[in-house]
This record gives sequence, C-alpha cells and structure tokens, in this order.
Amino acid sequence: MNRTHRIAQVLRKQKVDALFVTPSADLMYLIGYGGHPSERPTILAMVPGRSPVLVLPQLEAPRLQGRADVEIRSYADGEDPYESVRTVVADPSTRVNFAISDQAWAGVLLNLQELFPFASFSSASSLMRELRMVKDLDEMELLHEAGKRADQVFENVAQLRFTGLSESELSEELNGLLSDVGLARADWGPIVASGPNSASPHHITGDRQIEHGDAVVLDFGGVFEGYQADITRTLHVGPPDSDFKEVYETVLKAQQAAFDASRPGNTAANVDRAARDVIDGEGFGQYFIHRTGHGLGLDSHEEPYLVVGNGLTLEPGMTFSVEPGVYIPGRFGVRVEDTVAVYKDGPRRFNHATRELQVVH
Amino acid sequence: MNRTHRIAQVLRKQKVDALFVTPSADLMYLIGYGGHPSERPTILAMVPGRSPVLVLPQLEAPRLQGRADVEIRSYADGEDPYESVRTVVADPSTRVNFAISDQAWAGVLLNLQELFPFASFSSASSLMRELRMVKDLDEMELLHEAGKRADQVFENVAQLRFTGLSESELSEELNGLLSDVGLARADWGPIVASGPNSASPHHITGDRQIEHGDAVVLDFGGVFEGYQADITRTLHVGPPDSDFKEVYETVLKAQQAAFDASRPGNTAANVDRAARDVIDGEGFGQYFIHRTGHGLGLDSHEEPYLVVGNGLTLEPGMTFSVEPGVYIPGRFGVRVEDTVAVYKDGPRRFNHATRELQVVH
Repeated sequence: MNRTHRIAQVLRKQKVDALFVTPSADLMYLIGYGGHPSERPTILAMVPGRSPVLVLPQLEAPRLQGRADVEIRSYADGEDPYESVRTVVADPSTRVNFAISDQAWAGVLLNLQELFPFASFSSASSLMRELRMVKDLDEMELLHEAGKRADQVFENVAQLRFTGLSESELSEELNGLLSDVGLARADWGPIVASGPNSASPHHITGDRQIEHGDAVVLDFGGVFEGYQADITRTLHVGPPDSDFKEVYETVLKAQQAAFDASRPGNTAANVDRAARDVIDGEGFGQYFIHRTGHGLGLDSHEEPYLVVGNGLTLEPGMTFSVEPGVYIPGRFGVRVEDTVAVYKDGPRRFNHATRELQVVH
Repeated sequence: MNRTHRIAQVLRKQKVDALFVTPSADLMYLIGYGGHPSERPTILAMVPGRSPVLVLPQLEAPRLQGRADVEIRSYADGEDPYESVRTVVADPSTRVNFAISDQAWAGVLLNLQELFPFASFSSASSLMRELRMVKDLDEMELLHEAGKRADQVFENVAQLRFTGLSESELSEELNGLLSDVGLARADWGPIVASGPNSASPHHITGDRQIEHGDAVVLDFGGVFEGYQADITRTLHVGPPDSDFKEVYETVLKAQQAAFDASRPGNTAANVDRAARDVIDGEGFGQYFIHRTGHGLGLDSHEEPYLVVGNGLTLEPGMTFSVEPGVYIPGRFGVRVEDTVAVYKDGPRRFNHATRELQVVH
C-alpha cells in the first residue's frame, strides 16, 4: 500500500477530515516530491476518500508532469492559490478537524484558518510520525549507505594535519570530502569546534586557528538520495592529558550504554537515561547539557527524540542519533555520535568509523 | 533609532499587542541574529513598552552572550519553551491582537494559539515590510556589492566552453566561482537550463549535456554579509537563429521598460505592466508566464512583488529583481534579470554584467 493510502487510513482512524502538507520532508515522504518553501505556496491537500490534490505554482508544475496519483492544480502569479484549496473540502461551513504539517509556514496556516473559520487545526506531526518514525527496508538501506559514506569522510579527515588550519578551513575540507563521496549538502553546516570552543555543543564554526593541545569536535553529515547522515567524532591534537582522557572514556561508555539500551520495547527516555547514568556516575552530569539524540531520516532532526520525559516505546525500524557529550566550560568538550537503527534483535550502528580517540597533528 | 524600537512603533500604530518572530530574515533584521529553524523553537517576543525577549535553546545561548538589548531566556532539552513565552504577555486572558512572522513554523503558531486562546493572530509581514522593504544606505551598499560579485562570476562563466558540459557540471562550476568571489551559498541552487529545458523557468538543473545550438539560461546568486545577489543571463551556444534573436531582443526591451518604470511613485503592478506591454506587443504575451520580479534583501524573495494587482507604490530604498522572460515550450526560453534599486531620482541597476547576447562555444 502506498504512503498516501496509509496516511489516509491514519486520518480516518484519528478522525481528521483533511491534512495539509507544504514543502518539507513530510511532502517528500508522501509523494516523492519535496517542493521548496517560498512565498508561492505549494499545498498538498489530503481528504480521506478522494485522491490527493497538489496546489502549486504554474512555474513548478512541469516537475509533476505525468503523475496520475496526485491531482495537480497549478496557479499563475497573481492568482489566488487558496481558491483551489477551498474546493477540495466538501463543506467548509461545518465543524471539522484539520491537520497541517509542522513545518508549514505560519502564513499558510493563517490563510487556511481564514478560509475555513469553522475548522479546528492541529499539528500533523503526531499523524505523520506513525508512518515516518518506522523506516522500511529501503529507507534503512539508504540511511546505512549515507552513514558509510560519512565514515569514509571521517577516515580521510583524520589523515589531515590539523595544526594551523582554521575551523572554517577544516569545515571547507569536510565539505569537499563530503561532496567527493557523493553526499549532498545537509541543511546544517559541519560543526568544527576547537579548543575551548569545543565546550559549546552548537558552536558556530569560525576563524579560530587549531593549535597543539586542542580537542576538536567534528559533527558533520550530508544527504544520500534524500536520507541524512550524521556523525560526530572528537579528536585531539597531540597527546591528551588525563582529564581529557577521563572525559573521553566516560562519553564513550555513555554512548555504548545508550546504544545497548536502544532495544525494541525500551522507551526513548530510557535510552537518554542510560547515557546520563554513566555520565552522572562519573561526576560529569552537570556538563551533559543536551538530550542524547534525535531521529534521523528525510529530516536531519525528526522523531523520536531521546530526551527526558519521552515515554515513546522504541520499535524495529526506528533510526536516531546517539550522541552524548560532556562540555567543560573554558576548557574542552567531547561528543561521540553514531546513527543507530533499532532491529527486532536489538540495535545496530550505521556508522562504523573508529570511536577510539584519534590523535592528530 | 534601532530596529526593535522602530518595530515597536509600528506595533503601537497598528494596535498589535505582541509580535512573535522565529528564525528567519525577520529575526536577523530585528536583532542581527538569524537563528535556525528546528524542533527546538527560538522565539523573539516583542511587546511594546518592554524590552524584547528571546527564548532559545540553552545550546545556542552562548551565541547571544553579552547582548544587553535583548532579554535572553534559555531552556534546556526537556523543558517547555512556551512557559517562558507565556510570561512575556501581561494578561493572557484578555482579547489581544498578536502577529507572527510569516515563515514561523505552523507548529509554533499552533502552540501559541493554544497558549493564548483569546488572542487573534495575524501575519507579521505587513508590519515587517514597512521596515524591511525600504533599505537603508548600508543595506543598499551590501546589495550592490553582492550584485558586483555576481557580475564577476558571469564574466568568468561566459569564458567557459559550454558544449559537452552537463547542466549539473556547469552548476558546480558556478558554485565554485561564486565561492571564489566570496558569495556564500543561497538557499536556492543556480538554475542551469539548456536547450528545451530553458523553456521551464524553474527548471531543476539536471544531467542534460549542453549542445551546439542550445539556449542556456543561467540564474544564480549568493549571499554577501546576509544580503542576496540574484542575476540571470541567457547565452547561446553557437550563433542563434532569427527566432531566438527576435525573442532575445523582445525580452531585453521588456527588461529595459520595466527598469525605466521603476521610479518612486509608480506602482509595483505598473512595473510588471511595462514589461508585459512590450512582450504582448511583440506577440509573445502567452509565453511570459511569471511575474516581472520580487524584492531582494535578506531574503531571496521578499516584498515588493512586481505582479499584476499589486498596487503598492514604489519608494526610494526599495530593491527588487526585474526579470521578464519568454518561454517557447519544447524550443527555448530567454530571461534577463538584474537587481534594481529605486532612488529618489530614478532606478539604478546593481548588476552591470553585459546584457548583450553572449555567444559561447
């Protein structure tokens, strides 16, 4: 059964009368066309019992030529796209439940709310995630392939001489290597965080020159046939001191513990807990300042989130990052991240680049 | 007066009680920090009479360190960001008018609507555009500089041998040249449309090999210190036939007519009309299937839009693309685009690359 039929079933089950999806991974997932967000709206309207309608700018209609599974309604510049949307819904004067994809622009939602004043709108994430969170075999293969290619980049980057390179230069090297292995650019740049900057988990790669004695966090990825790679390794320029080694070993143990906990039947919160217990136990709890991971698929961040309070039960086919970290302000940070997939018999890693500390020059 | 004070004045004038801005050009414009859209919301809450509050993930808080003009409220993973937002608004139980930036995620708007059930929400575009549409001198200079750099790329690319290159290869060349002149990647890729593909204005650059006899539309740009460049030229591989020459001359005349019409006091629709009149007059009206242009600034597409029905009056400081085109299905397309700025004494171009037809090999 194709994905638009499956989401129609979910809509019926949840008593949702229409779903609106704009350019996003949701759109790509449902109809294999992602569109692009712009002031010219593209809106997929799904009403159970009728074929999906895609309203899109005339300029972009040629891209959908020959599609029989989706009814195409294009509009010219100056025409009102919402006119076409309105007619998809049988009777706009009754109380109905509509859902809209989370990443739709607020401007689109405001227009739809004006168009359908009696509708109550909710976020489509809870509907979409029933489908998107559990990957099929093809998706798993693409994610594994993306992971392998990122591994190759890490192996190549670990051969470089780091000393004297700026973070930005190293980031450019990474971009080149990612392109060489056939990974398209992700919607986030590589994070290259060196020395004290490595203590900021979302550091903006800058002009700092890498020096002997630095820890260097490399967090990077790319896109293979729509699916994301995401890997982090922390290297050390020259031999590390004992403080760094202690933290590194702790993060490695935490990453392994969270990996081991990524079994079907366990909750997302428990995977987070497993990493946190190790880091707390070594006395670094206050320096682990983010969740343990996020789902990975067509989006670089998607459900499930491995975070305190998330009681979601893991199932075979779920894929996510496992990336605990310890960040000592003013000194250094360590993060180790693999993409992990849940199988019936337990977790498997989609990254195989060595997690042993790499000492570079 | 700084921009947050100016928008506060607009809010008062329009009787808007609070404005919510998420990662976007709006956020960059107001506080010089653009953030990035993600499942961890970043929300600037502006209430006239109190200092702006920025709610953002703890991970990203270091980026705003030392800012005295914005009150920073960070939240950890697992904490509810909307709790911080709620307290910014004095009394959530009264009927109030709120505005939200157009590009905010629908998921954020739905959460805010739940948080403030008595509020009526509208799109912030009409407020923001009062400020953003009219550029100051610094912004004009950045846009001009971005344009000059794109011109340089065109001059270099016109030296290449086109025959035998695929569209994708040429696009990669363009990306390299753009990076060489210091333009960062735009949120849209270069459009390289060759032969019959050039008749699709938003063609997705593909694997088609460029041949002798092709028209080639190159539409590209990049970002200089946050501000966008956007230029299109159509070249011909080998000598063009008379049909192509006729269309090319028509588009060139239309572009000049729209440029000439870009005077203060004229309407956006009239600029569109000026281009359309020329193309209609030559009998190609049915092949000019898009608006004449779009505003350009921090966003690659922003107000004002030069489109039928837009009665907006042009003012000095407005900047937009002027890009008429004629697209003959199955044969070829021609588009010529410059970034144009409105000055008191009339329009000026920010692109100076030759508009004479370049014949390449």
